[in-house]
Amino acid sequence: MIGVVMDGCPAGLLLDEDFIQHELDRRRPGQSGLTTARKESDRFRFVSGIMDGKTTGQPLTAVIMNTGHKPQDYDSMKDLFRPSHADYTYEAKYGIRDHRGGGRASARETATRVLAGAVARLLLHQEGVRVSAYVSRVGTVTLQKSFRELDLSATDAHPVRCPDQAAAAEMALLIEEARDRGDSVGGVITCVAEHVPAGLGEPVFDKLQADLARAMLSINAVHGFEYGSGFEGASMFGSDHNDEFIIEKEKVTTRTNRSGGIQGGISNGADIYFNVAFKPVATIAQKQQTVTRDGKATELEAKGRHDPCVVPRAVPVVEAMTALVLADHWLRNQTARMPVTEK
Amino acid sequence: MIGVVMDGCPAGLLLDEDFIQHELDRRRPGQSGLTTARKESDRFRFVSGIMDGKTTGQPLTAVIMNTGHKPQDYDSMKDLFRPSHADYTYEAKYGIRDHRGGGRASARETATRVLAGAVARLLLHQEGVRVSAYVSRVGTVTLQKSFRELDLSATDAHPVRCPDQAAAAEMALLIEEARDRGDSVGGVITCVAEHVPAGLGEPVFDKLQADLARAMLSINAVHGFEYGSGFEGASMFGSDHNDEFIIEKEKVTTRTNRSGGIQGGISNGADIYFNVAFKPVATIAQKQQTVTRDGKATELEAKGRHDPCVVPRAVPVVEAMTALVLADHWLRNQTARMPVTEK
Amino acid sequence: MIGVVMDGCPAGLLLDEDFIQHELDRRRPGQSGLTTARKESDRFRFVSGIMDGKTTGQPLTAVIMNTGHKPQDYDSMKDLFRPSHADYTYEAKYGIRDHRGGGRASARETATRVLAGAVARLLLHQEGVRVSAYVSRVGTVTLQKSFRELDLSATDAHPVRCPDQAAAAEMALLIEEARDRGDSVGGVITCVAEHVPAGLGEPVFDKLQADLARAMLSINAVHGFEYGSGFEGASMFGSDHNDEFIIEKEKVTTRTNRSGGIQGGISNGADIYFNVAFKPVATIAQKQQTVTRDGKATELEAKGRHDPCVVPRAVPVVEAMTALVLADHWLRNQTARMPVTEK
Amino acid sequence: MIGVVMDGCPAGLLLDEDFIQHELDRRRPGQSGLTTARKESDRFRFVSGIMDGKTTGQPLTAVIMNTGHKPQDYDSMKDLFRPSHADYTYEAKYGIRDHRGGGRASARETATRVLAGAVARLLLHQEGVRVSAYVSRVGTVTLQKSFRELDLSATDAHPVRCPDQAAAAEMALLIEEARDRGDSVGGVITCVAEHVPAGLGEPVFDKLQADLARAMLSINAVHGFEYGSGFEGASMFGSDHNDEFIIEKEKVTTRTNRSGGIQGGISNGADIYFNVAFKPVATIAQKQQTVTRDGKATELEAKGRHDPCVVPRAVPVVEAMTALVLADHWLRNQTARMPVTEK
Repeated sequence: MIGVVMDGCPAGLLLDEDFIQHELDRRRPGQSGLTTARKESDRFRFVSGIMDGKTTGQPLTAVIMNTGHKPQDYDSMKDLFRPSHADYTYEAKYGIRDHRGGGRASARETATRVLAGAVARLLLHQEGVRVSAYVSRVGTVTLQKSFRELDLSATDAHPVRCPDQAAAAEMALLIEEARDRGDSVGGVITCVAEHVPAGLGEPVFDKLQADLARAMLSINAVHGFEYGSGFEGASMFGSDHNDEFIIEKEKVTTRTNRSGGIQGGISNGADIYFNVAFKPVATIAQKQQTVTRDGKATELEAKGRHDPCVVPRAVPVVEAMTALVLADHWLRNQTARMPVTEK
Repeated sequence: MIGVVMDGCPAGLLLDEDFIQHELDRRRPGQSGLTTARKESDRFRFVSGIMDGKTTGQPLTAVIMNTGHKPQDYDSMKDLFRPSHADYTYEAKYGIRDHRGGGRASARETATRVLAGAVARLLLHQEGVRVSAYVSRVGTVTLQKSFRELDLSATDAHPVRCPDQAAAAEMALLIEEARDRGDSVGGVITCVAEHVPAGLGEPVFDKLQADLARAMLSINAVHGFEYGSGFEGASMFGSDHNDEFIIEKEKVTTRTNRSGGIQGGISNGADIYFNVAFKPVATIAQKQQTVTRDGKATELEAKGRHDPCVVPRAVPVVEAMTALVLADHWLRNQTARMPVTEK
Repeated sequence: MIGVVMDGCPAGLLLDEDFIQHELDRRRPGQSGLTTARKESDRFRFVSGIMDGKTTGQPLTAVIMNTGHKPQDYDSMKDLFRPSHADYTYEAKYGIRDHRGGGRASARETATRVLAGAVARLLLHQEGVRVSAYVSRVGTVTLQKSFRELDLSATDAHPVRCPDQAAAAEMALLIEEARDRGDSVGGVITCVAEHVPAGLGEPVFDKLQADLARAMLSINAVHGFEYGSGFEGASMFGSDHNDEFIIEKEKVTTRTNRSGGIQGGISNGADIYFNVAFKPVATIAQKQQTVTRDGKATELEAKGRHDPCVVPRAVPVVEAMTALVLADHWLRNQTARMPVTEK
Repeated sequence: MIGVVMDGCPAGLLLDEDFIQHELDRRRPGQSGLTTARKESDRFRFVSGIMDGKTTGQPLTAVIMNTGHKPQDYDSMKDLFRPSHADYTYEAKYGIRDHRGGGRASARETATRVLAGAVARLLLHQEGVRVSAYVSRVGTVTLQKSFRELDLSATDAHPVRCPDQAAAAEMALLIEEARDRGDSVGGVITCVAEHVPAGLGEPVFDKLQADLARAMLSINAVHGFEYGSGFEGASMFGSDHNDEFIIEKEKVTTRTNRSGGIQGGISNGADIYFNVAFKPVATIAQKQQTVTRDGKATELEAKGRHDPCVVPRAVPVVEAMTALVLADHWLRNQTARMPVTEK
């Protein structure tokens, strides 16, 4: 069982539990032959903060049952450090390490993010905000279209979660190849937030992109974040990069959107979009060199089936973390101005 | 005058004011023909928290004088929104906008980061940590060497702050080209933190890379962050990417370092390295289309000399933000374990 | 079931579960004829953050089972506001109110404080700190001795938790009188923290007494806090009140201790002592006037047995909150100074 | 010069600088023969966060000039610990102590509280909230009337700041007596907040009374806090203490107000009132025993004129801290509920 406490959720938010369960199911392992065969049912239950289907303003607490977890599976890892895992660093930091799996360094932890993110999405839906992510790269297979050319409602039609079916098929082949070799492969997720109201984000340290970057880099296996023009923008001239303001339908908007919907750390009402890079997951079935806790060289050969590519399952995680950042900033923005008082 | 309050700085830290001034001078505009000609002297003064050259444990407050600032320079910007600046979003958020320059959306704000970062660096020096950044790309000119092949002590030898003199010269040409056209150009900064003790960083949301990402994306004009293998790692297979543990000089270390010195969000003692992408600055001397506050199309032609490429001057800013994140996590890590009590 | 998450607990703290259970048992209702007859078993279980009896540095989470809770007992309270309860204010704040009992306004919530406080006490024991509270007043019956004249180890010998047996007997009579009338009665708890190291507490807003006051006033039914000379000190002259410094056993100490062990918001090594005033609990068996949610006058007659005086059971709650404040400040104080570095 | 940074102040608040200066003048020493003759002019100036007299949403920073401060006055205190001051504890905590006066343990620090509190009061005035404090005790002279029997607008008519002129005169005599003896005397301040909207305060740890208690105990020399029925309430029976709900002018209210306007930690719309106990200030002109930093017994005889009773001057400080707590909770309460969305 894992749990999540959501503090600060306003009272009176209608919680659609089917939607929340659906999001959890999207993250769950074992959805297709492309992901790990380990079954986790991920049934959740609210244990505080809800009455008659609505939030009460109390901390919203939920637990997720964990039928598939077997601590003894991890016994063999007790005395060695798995390469590119958190085993060594947890031990270095705390002097004690819980090797039994399902801990804070486990990908299982992302289930709680998806759950909390689903609540945040329900809040954002009331404000008209939509958050959509999809796989835009698997290993060396890159989707060449921008999000504007895609039908984002088609993302879940293919287990790879790339809305372009041709690219999805190619990505699937690469994942299968990795799986068959006992290997893993990385990828990139693109995320788009539409209809975000102008004004979210705080100057200086809590810029909207800063909090998005932190949220994304807090996800296991993420090694990079870029928004708007991103790393490509670093190659450009200002005269090509600047987004000129225009008036459209009597509203201020920009002709282009290389700013990624954020200027000076604050949303400007245009689409917020960004890319998130995932390294290949560290758990592979191939034999690897490593060392034991008492400093002896050894070999590690992981047993069981593991996920050759987490990127498709990470799509709801990226959406969830995006929604949490936006919802937090939406709440924070409620006190940015004095209310207009009527005389 | 701008100021900075540093809370939480331990008592008894020796503050080398020459070092701090030197860091401020590295950020200051007008250092070479490659940067803006606007003169800012950036003399600083501590106004609380210091006695006999040492911190007292009280909030450390410093002010930086501002001889060059002329609010009237900004009068023409009062009623229009500069493209890709924060003018529109500040107004959308707060309903009121201080157009007089030098505010929180101004690059001048980074002087306070450099000052605070210099204090953090002095703290880290006591622990043996070294933080070094340099320019690894300007526009389309990319330094092809890794930080391991470079002499990082040579960074400041060229005003571009690229330690490879050939690449630096090429970058300088591109900056001059942009300057002469009244344009600006983006770039990438690489940063390396050496001798960081294992154990810094906190699981889940406050992973070390998450806080570094947030710190970098909080810097004006930054559009991307990647650490370790970064976006390139997303193209790799796990069997190629994993860092195998080995024993070297009786200590646990890794054969490769694609993890960028961080595993599970916690430093492992290896070099921490990352790239930071800067868009070209928005202020250019060319004529641009934009709109006024009351929704009319207009043209903007910025006057005066501006910085064609901020990336060389951003090197100390990246170092400062890195040092602040590391120092904060170093302090936080002091309570990760119960002290060993002697019987 | 109620739960508590303790974040920031250092790794390697040995958790004596018998001690924790013992503290929970001291708070539990139904311990004697003087307190409510409602049975709650208060068995607890750690669900994260512990391995082999020691903290792992992960958030320490515990749940307490709740065998006695019957939500239907509260059905009659759904549509009216109980006098001096939180019914009206929760509804005014959130627009929705969970009337089913056991919520955040319930005294049951203090069980989690006792649990967390027991963990804090275990940490403080390693540092030699002892926290002891006792009942010093029930209604108009006041214990006339100072804590220095009492044997604090005798507190639990009488169910009233007053270490002076004569005063305890008199207090018990008053509680029985209130119980027999279907009434409740208030009281005062005195708390002493011995062997607190000098240096805990932070200047200005986070003074040690400020955090203690906040912690005490956060306990249900508490209406007052005074430390050291307290309200009586307000009647004194400075020449009588000041604590002169002296040297005793080669250490700096004070001749008197009207400062209550805290000067300038920071502990000075002397005993910290304070009083906490509890109003009589609002739930009584007598008939009371009140109004319904839709604004009609009505009568309330609470059913079942309730606690005529919570003060004896609040003793472990006061100790727990004191321990939490001291442990938090002890952790915080670990970074007050730069470590001495050896050359 | 001392400064204060107010973060989180909403944009668009009109700042009446005359009101703010007036509040600062009320706190200033040297207002009458009853307080210290030390002259401090306390002129303030905003240095950020304001434009055209309105807040901009940026951190509001102000500085207060300090014409009267003479660090050399404190030279004699460099090597000894003044009784009941913070000298010893600062040294114990930080290993270094700034003896030059005006630091964080100085009463001068309260000027910044008054300044920030005046801003909070301006915000609260927009919501109709009034905060009024007055002296209700000096030493053994106690005002016998409740705040309901007093004309709170008369508080400043007498330098003692007690709105009852007879009691004020008696208090003044006692202060003069203390002054003439080179002594100091303590006292009590009562504070009332009227028209506070129902709903301010957060369950469990951030109860409104908890934050008020913390704020009051963070003021120098405060040794006690009680709200509503306070310590007296501890002597009562529940049947006498409970506040029955009634309907008055079609609104829910209570017949009595022993709850002090707060139930379950949340304001209920009734008057919030509380008492704050101040010890006599530690600085007196009489000779006292103490010890030096190197552990030798010595005598201290403070020079110059000092304040025999700070309580009159602490009235605006108590009001300011109350306003800050209420304004913070008012802001926090803006997100307690989902906004009603129109279809």
